Amino acid sequence: MIVIMKPGATKEQVKVIIARVKKEGLDVHLSEGKEQTIIGLIGDTRKMVDVAFDSYDGVENTVRITHTYKLTSRDFHPDNTVVDVDGLKIGDGSLTMMAGPCSIESLEQMLECARIAKEGGASVLRGGAFKPRTSPYAFQGLEEEGLKYIRQAADKYDMKVITEVMDEANLELVAKYTDILQIGARNMQNYKLLQAVGKTGMPVALKRGIAGTIDEWLNAAEYIAAQGNFKVIFVERGIRTYETATRNTLDLSAVPLIKKLSHFPIIVDPSHGVGIWDLVPPMAVAGVAAGADGLIVEIHPDPAKAWSDGPQCLNEKTYAKMMKQVHIMEKAMQEVKAID
Amino acid sequence: MIVIMKPGATKEQVKVIIARVKKEGLDVHLSEGKEQTIIGLIGDTRKMVDVAFDSYDGVENTVRITHTYKLTSRDFHPDNTVVDVDGLKIGDGSLTMMAGPCSIESLEQMLECARIAKEGGASVLRGGAFKPRTSPYAFQGLEEEGLKYIRQAADKYDMKVITEVMDEANLELVAKYTDILQIGARNMQNYKLLQAVGKTGMPVALKRGIAGTIDEWLNAAEYIAAQGNFKVIFVERGIRTYETATRNTLDLSAVPLIKKLSHFPIIVDPSHGVGIWDLVPPMAVAGVAAGADGLIVEIHPDPAKAWSDGPQCLNEKTYAKMMKQVHIMEKAMQEVKAID
Amino acid sequence: MIVIMKPGATKEQVKVIIARVKKEGLDVHLSEGKEQTIIGLIGDTRKMVDVAFDSYDGVENTVRITHTYKLTSRDFHPDNTVVDVDGLKIGDGSLTMMAGPCSIESLEQMLECARIAKEGGASVLRGGAFKPRTSPYAFQGLEEEGLKYIRQAADKYDMKVITEVMDEANLELVAKYTDILQIGARNMQNYKLLQAVGKTGMPVALKRGIAGTIDEWLNAAEYIAAQGNFKVIFVERGIRTYETATRNTLDLSAVPLIKKLSHFPIIVDPSHGVGIWDLVPPMAVAGVAAGADGLIVEIHPDPAKAWSDGPQCLNEKTYAKMMKQVHIMEKAMQEVKAID
Amino acid sequence: MIVIMKPGATKEQVKVIIARVKKEGLDVHLSEGKEQTIIGLIGDTRKMVDVAFDSYDGVENTVRITHTYKLTSRDFHPDNTVVDVDGLKIGDGSLTMMAGPCSIESLEQMLECARIAKEGGASVLRGGAFKPRTSPYAFQGLEEEGLKYIRQAADKYDMKVITEVMDEANLELVAKYTDILQIGARNMQNYKLLQAVGKTGMPVALKRGIAGTIDEWLNAAEYIAAQGNFKVIFVERGIRTYETATRNTLDLSAVPLIKKLSHFPIIVDPSHGVGIWDLVPPMAVAGVAAGADGLIVEIHPDPAKAWSDGPQCLNEKTYAKMMKQVHIMEKAMQEVKAID
Repeated sequence: MIVIMKPGATKEQVKVIIARVKKEGLDVHLSEGKEQTIIGLIGDTRKMVDVAFDSYDGVENTVRITHTYKLTSRDFHPDNTVVDVDGLKIGDGSLTMMAGPCSIESLEQMLECARIAKEGGASVLRGGAFKPRTSPYAFQGLEEEGLKYIRQAADKYDMKVITEVMDEANLELVAKYTDILQIGARNMQNYKLLQAVGKTGMPVALKRGIAGTIDEWLNAAEYIAAQGNFKVIFVERGIRTYETATRNTLDLSAVPLIKKLSHFPIIVDPSHGVGIWDLVPPMAVAGVAAGADGLIVEIHPDPAKAWSDGPQCLNEKTYAKMMKQVHIMEKAMQEVKAID
Repeated sequence: MIVIMKPGATKEQVKVIIARVKKEGLDVHLSEGKEQTIIGLIGDTRKMVDVAFDSYDGVENTVRITHTYKLTSRDFHPDNTVVDVDGLKIGDGSLTMMAGPCSIESLEQMLECARIAKEGGASVLRGGAFKPRTSPYAFQGLEEEGLKYIRQAADKYDMKVITEVMDEANLELVAKYTDILQIGARNMQNYKLLQAVGKTGMPVALKRGIAGTIDEWLNAAEYIAAQGNFKVIFVERGIRTYETATRNTLDLSAVPLIKKLSHFPIIVDPSHGVGIWDLVPPMAVAGVAAGADGLIVEIHPDPAKAWSDGPQCLNEKTYAKMMKQVHIMEKAMQEVKAID
Repeated sequence: MIVIMKPGATKEQVKVIIARVKKEGLDVHLSEGKEQTIIGLIGDTRKMVDVAFDSYDGVENTVRITHTYKLTSRDFHPDNTVVDVDGLKIGDGSLTMMAGPCSIESLEQMLECARIAKEGGASVLRGGAFKPRTSPYAFQGLEEEGLKYIRQAADKYDMKVITEVMDEANLELVAKYTDILQIGARNMQNYKLLQAVGKTGMPVALKRGIAGTIDEWLNAAEYIAAQGNFKVIFVERGIRTYETATRNTLDLSAVPLIKKLSHFPIIVDPSHGVGIWDLVPPMAVAGVAAGADGLIVEIHPDPAKAWSDGPQCLNEKTYAKMMKQVHIMEKAMQEVKAID
Repeated sequence: MIVIMKPGATKEQVKVIIARVKKEGLDVHLSEGKEQTIIGLIGDTRKMVDVAFDSYDGVENTVRITHTYKLTSRDFHPDNTVVDVDGLKIGDGSLTMMAGPCSIESLEQMLECARIAKEGGASVLRGGAFKPRTSPYAFQGLEEEGLKYIRQAADKYDMKVITEVMDEANLELVAKYTDILQIGARNMQNYKLLQAVGKTGMPVALKRGIAGTIDEWLNAAEYIAAQGNFKVIFVERGIRTYETATRNTLDLSAVPLIKKLSHFPIIVDPSHGVGIWDLVPPMAVAGVAAGADGLIVEIHPDPAKAWSDGPQCLNEKTYAKMMKQVHIMEKAMQEVKAID
């Protein structure tokens, strides 16, 4: 961290800053230039995150060099972290496929979804039992009943389960039925919930907030990692921009950027990313090509009858076709990654 | 709600839609035009929120006419709702002033803040005991100790307390010390928390999410109102845009727009809105002029030493000066509102 | 400008940077800290705008301290610039009111608009003769015929004219009829046009681009000022954000921010800012309260029949009512500004 | 187009709307529902683009069904348009590669860039002779001298040239040296320029505006096509969002969406899209996987010495490595596209 003083800053003003830094146990390197004095902080500047240097008299600007997150950073852990979901490896260079409906509606629907998902090559079944909905009058999920259905369907087809936990109160319940705890976009900065899922030690799929920056997302992961839980999986699911032609703007550049800054795996959710079913396959293929460790997509035996998010759901036929393309891409990426 | 069929849609496709609508107990009005068939839904279309008409064969588009919220709507309640905070009226045409630090740091700091706030004309003391922070290593608040300080300081100066509740687990604790429960921007769509504060029957200050649309914000209020709690106060605090010269973009057009669509009062938070202390006074004055029912601003006896958000804090002198301007504006607005 | 080297940067890498800086005739101040070496640039760093220091080996980051604009900056010209439009002063502490239709449609329409505008207190008549339209099939303006109408109408009511110039080819023509040249939002970064209007020496109303940052806007003004033309008037007209409830998001914080960074006056366009006529009056009032030097609004004798932008137009009655409110606010702001 | 009346609209209000529609030579289909009257417009509703139906008394809402663009639409021209650049086909299913520096700096630099580009498999050489720059003090390009260099370098390596034309005044000059006219992001809605390049009949690469919607972009293409020029190539180059970790947010979903809505080819510019050189290769690969007809990337023999945009430039080695990956992807996409 560097504090840059204004051209006319007095020696007294510089002294005040130095005293403030030393109070936290850090040291300084002082550089008195012809035009400006610059104060470099030496030591663990994470302690100084809250100090409002900009409010001190004579200060022009402060520049942060190091990140506020640490355990999540690739500097801290240079190798890729492979998340082990009871034998299933995410982030080991293979492609993990997750599929299922937006909402869990019935056991029959889940069994049918599991069959379709599995046939296409998915190893994880998705589905929501607690649905965060904009309107209080919209369907809010089958709750525990739904959890039972998804577990049963997954077990029949030897799949893992991923499902969202929306609050601490239901964490224990959800944890009983799922293999991966999903943190939804609206909860990316629900820090108490992040700490709570961190404490479970279970794999956590952390969706990017609808207006979450890369830096905030990495810090959200840090809340989980700080509890000793290194089973974090980032999920890029599109961000909110001015564009309304798609539901969100899927930010695929987040894939290589997260891989550069962090060691945790990242998967892509093209269904929420675009919100229009016939754009899902090309964006799934592009997501794999961007380097994602996996995909999570919405499927439904009959999208028109889905209780939620029907417009972005694939049906059996369109999903099967997409998966053929995804598998071609998966193979091509082995070659791409081998180039050096 | 209107379902617009594609130009070439078949009679069979139209029948499927009609059957789906009637299944929910609604009726239809069919309009078979030369170019397109249009199906108007008759009845309470809120039931149909989840139906993916766009996924049905032959459907071009659906148009929603009525809002998904009801109790929050001005159609439902044409007069302004006045929120009574134990005798203090918010939304009755007067201007309610709230001030205090970002974080509660000590009893002395709170007493000093309360004195400054009160002298400037504030009737509500703000301050955070639980601080949602981007980094897990940043100061997270004094918790119950802090709640005691703000209560004690407010009582000494005969003020009300507003403070944030971040999760259900601490709701009872926070409720014991505060007069107004604040829902932070990150929790605007934390529906379980909205329902929980709704059940308390206490006044709730609902901050707009950092990327919250007006429609989502009104629906968030509906979650509270649906619990029978009509003591909602909207707080405009800036939205996230591409502009980085200010911390957020304060959307003052939200003030007249919320007043047009809803009966609940709305106040403005210029401190978070701009994030730069010397822009706070003009935006506070502009907020009053836009028709806000109140303001909430950050003050600190010594902003440079504030534990958080120092750069956007006013000190005693700048706050006092701003309040003189605010009071001039308050009077001018009485004249403005009298024009008809 | 400061170049921050990576912790492990070699002496050789530092030398390369220093050589690059000296090549441009600047000097350096070297600060070799325990953890990092920092190189401060001494001299006119505007010459170094294009140097990609970040691409040099061993460089962590570069920090720009000074702005890239100069003549536009308040540092360069501490007093407010008052733009003189043939006797009418903009930016002298008074409020300049501009009103008129979106499109010039006929002489009768312009005469009627001028009468209404003038009666409400406007001194400048607006109206477009060349209309930039999203669709090539939309009405594109009456061109020179329209310019004649607006000039004639303004002259009859002793008003000034403001109208948009869309390209260099028509600059001479537009300049013949108007008093203020308006640069539309789509042209904020049409640098050739900025230079051309700069050369005319005429007053220029520079609209903020639909996604223009404050910094880009100030640099756009610099293109005009660099031609020796100091008659720049900034026009805040709303920016594009994710919110669709209003046409744009009117960023009133731009008013105090531009006044802090620049000496040129700034006016507010609430009509384009919100795009909904009944939100225009409160935002006009708020714009004045934010410290604007003037307002520009759209009016039409019969908005429903307007050839463009009807939904955001005020009619005679609503405009007259708004102007009463604006005049109350204008007076109140004299008191507000007197506080010190 | 459909006009939806308010529940309480009078018969008189409905009559006014019908009269307005018939005045333009269109017909109506009237649907008088139990709750609301709906008026469907029959005929070419592009004539009605400017009518402010929302301003008429009794109108609730209007819904546009057809697009405002026509020639650009895939409805109008179901097959892909293949743009022929003097023998080079863009949009025929093959991948067209364009590479070169941001700014043309010297003949030597262009010859070196052409050699590198060609060796990697590029058939089009890029480079700017006129540079639109935020600051007037930044390097603005070598102008005609630069055009000569790029032409000479391209000819030596048997490549085509793409370069930006910034204004009508220089169109003739630029057209003399280039094969493809590039319209920059800042000029996407510079309609006079669009019409002018339309009239040349030359291939036009139309970059998406920095905050351009898909709909505005398609309409911008329509300005060119309306001049009889069907040689339009869309260029996705990232949009401006709240995220600052990348220079822009590359919206790859624009690729399948543009292909769905239009028949013109689309290429991707990952260099401007992300602005960080080591993220360019994965996004180039992802762009191909999203279905792009080509790529345009920035290269430089020595990025650290580039006169502009150095941080996003690839050098010979990184470009060559990327191209190997791109060629693997190109082949994989032949297989992906064959799936049906």
